[in-house]
Amino acid sequence: MQRPIHGGNLVWAAAKAGCHPSAILDFSASINPLGPPTSLITAIQSNLAQITHYPDPSYQQLCLALGAEHQVDPRYILPGNGAAELLTWAARELADLEEIILVTPAFRDYDRAIATFGGKVKKFPLDLSNLSGLSGLSSISQKGKKAGILINNPHNPTGKIWQREELLPYLDQFALVVVDEAFMDFLPPGEEQSLIPLVKDFSNLVIIRSLTKFYSIPGLRLGYAIAAPQRLQRWQEWRDPWSVNILAEVAGIAALKDQEFRQQTWDWLAPTRKKFFQDLAAIPGLEPHLGAANFLLVQSQTSVAQLQTQLLQKRKILIRDCLSFPELGDRYFRVAIRTVAENQYLIDSLTSIINNVKN
Amino acid sequence: MQRPIHGGNLVWAAAKAGCHPSAILDFSASINPLGPPTSLITAIQSNLAQITHYPDPSYQQLCLALGAEHQVDPRYILPGNGAAELLTWAARELADLEEIILVTPAFRDYDRAIATFGGKVKKFPLDLSNLSGLSGLSSISQKGKKAGILINNPHNPTGKIWQREELLPYLDQFALVVVDEAFMDFLPPGEEQSLIPLVKDFSNLVIIRSLTKFYSIPGLRLGYAIAAPQRLQRWQEWRDPWSVNILAEVAGIAALKDQEFRQQTWDWLAPTRKKFFQDLAAIPGLEPHLGAANFLLVQSQTSVAQLQTQLLQKRKILIRDCLSFPELGDRYFRVAIRTVAENQYLIDSLTSIINNVKN
Repeated sequence: MQRPIHGGNLVWAAAKAGCHPSAILDFSASINPLGPPTSLITAIQSNLAQITHYPDPSYQQLCLALGAEHQVDPRYILPGNGAAELLTWAARELADLEEIILVTPAFRDYDRAIATFGGKVKKFPLDLSNLSGLSGLSSISQKGKKAGILINNPHNPTGKIWQREELLPYLDQFALVVVDEAFMDFLPPGEEQSLIPLVKDFSNLVIIRSLTKFYSIPGLRLGYAIAAPQRLQRWQEWRDPWSVNILAEVAGIAALKDQEFRQQTWDWLAPTRKKFFQDLAAIPGLEPHLGAANFLLVQSQTSVAQLQTQLLQKRKILIRDCLSFPELGDRYFRVAIRTVAENQYLIDSLTSIINNVKN
Repeated sequence: MQRPIHGGNLVWAAAKAGCHPSAILDFSASINPLGPPTSLITAIQSNLAQITHYPDPSYQQLCLALGAEHQVDPRYILPGNGAAELLTWAARELADLEEIILVTPAFRDYDRAIATFGGKVKKFPLDLSNLSGLSGLSSISQKGKKAGILINNPHNPTGKIWQREELLPYLDQFALVVVDEAFMDFLPPGEEQSLIPLVKDFSNLVIIRSLTKFYSIPGLRLGYAIAAPQRLQRWQEWRDPWSVNILAEVAGIAALKDQEFRQQTWDWLAPTRKKFFQDLAAIPGLEPHLGAANFLLVQSQTSVAQLQTQLLQKRKILIRDCLSFPELGDRYFRVAIRTVAENQYLIDSLTSIINNVKN
């Protein structure tokens, strides 16, 4: 079986670990370990009979709920079959421009979506040693060239969060600015840096959001785009009419109402991330980057491919290697932040394996 | 609210009928009234916890089940987020050809998918008065022109089934032959006319199938394409990696195993369709076409838009008007075949409304 280019591939991991996929402790997919919320599961259960009907192609109820959530007119919202489906259509529009600036390392699915429509990519490599910011980005594209930019915030896999003000200038510079905010909801209200409030003023701004990470429903598929209605109308005409399944729709509506789950997640994340970061940093040969999301990028002095294999075979733990990010290669891995006990189990396992390699 | 261009739009119907969508008796979407099978619901319920994981991007288990079902190598199968998603990618390949022959009237989503990629359509209008067949189709495209064809079998909305032998010559004539067999599973083994056995020999053949109609799961979204592996590999690289949600995958696997449900459906359909046809034909001013699928196309002497409104307002029944099929207009409607009692309720309602119009 080929090495996967995304996290969360339990079928691959289980084959390598020699166990059933359900036995794998998955640190490779950055999914909230507190979820899904009970309210969401209840909503699915009590709406199971709805699967005999087609979804409402206008996804009215979900758009209303998302509109209320972000204080945005529902016409500015288009739900999608996961953020990845919406990336496809965003990439189609980016590909119409003369060049696409891609901040790298980048989520592997960006390459896929851009290649689907033959977009011309110019990479803007982040300086991983300090992650100070985006200086240089304003001069990367030749003056007069119609360029677009695709960036995520917080950035995956580093976890770096850019301040709203840092991104503002690019709205004037680029013909199309696509900001993938798939992990933004992990930042509590006082800290989040979403550009959503700007969509009304910038028709060249597209925000892509996911509900699958925060609410732990990657298997259900649910994301949305926020952008000018005319643009979203175009996407909706391109794609099929029933892209979001009806259970994802009811799950999303229920999840958005669950203030308690949201608060629990924020309360869990900050201290747990801090402790996990410190514990990882204390392991000789590992150097974690402090990120703002629910995952950590870790630099390793030993081969990550080997580390990953041993974690799978000895502990049935899956970490995300970074071989699919050409800028990172075999010296980096990414781990989701999970419960305190699960994080501790990974720390113990890493310590034991790295000690064994040394001796 | 705009008049919908597809069946099954209960939100629209409910607004018109002044009731909750769940109160509508839906004859507009051609969904098996016996489903979903209990085995499928049980599979969803017992796999609900799986939504916290990403689907397997290779959909190995589902492809194995579908391969066994059709006696086809699983590499010839690509699951999709409903047949409509796969139509998008089929249309992309059709649009690369010099022209696309579309047998009309045609499922409205064909236009959408072809327009997404700017395909050039040449219509082949069926003779609705006798539906004798496809004579003339072999000469529609100029010699030497690279043309593709998109046809469904059984045909929607007429229900006409073409024999395998009638379609065979087009495999030599056209550069790409896309056969939408979304309703083929309603024909029992001795009667079905699928071209699936030919995919191994014809790399220019694409079959599109749906599991949503027969198993009553349009809200879950599940379809698949059967075609040469190289072609499907290309589609998979175009689209996002997790197009089918995990509940649809487990539902599909469970449904395919349920031989009893399948037999029940076949046992129900033939006599129920016959009776429904006769009862419709007995209503003055209505002339049903005898089709092979789970719906009937009916010609009406009175305005269908008016009939539809009255059925909604007086009986909360939704029938499928044919205004979105330019060849049919206001004198045709389509009805799903439902249970004996529900069909009878429609017959009584139609009789009463049509009598009232006359008097």
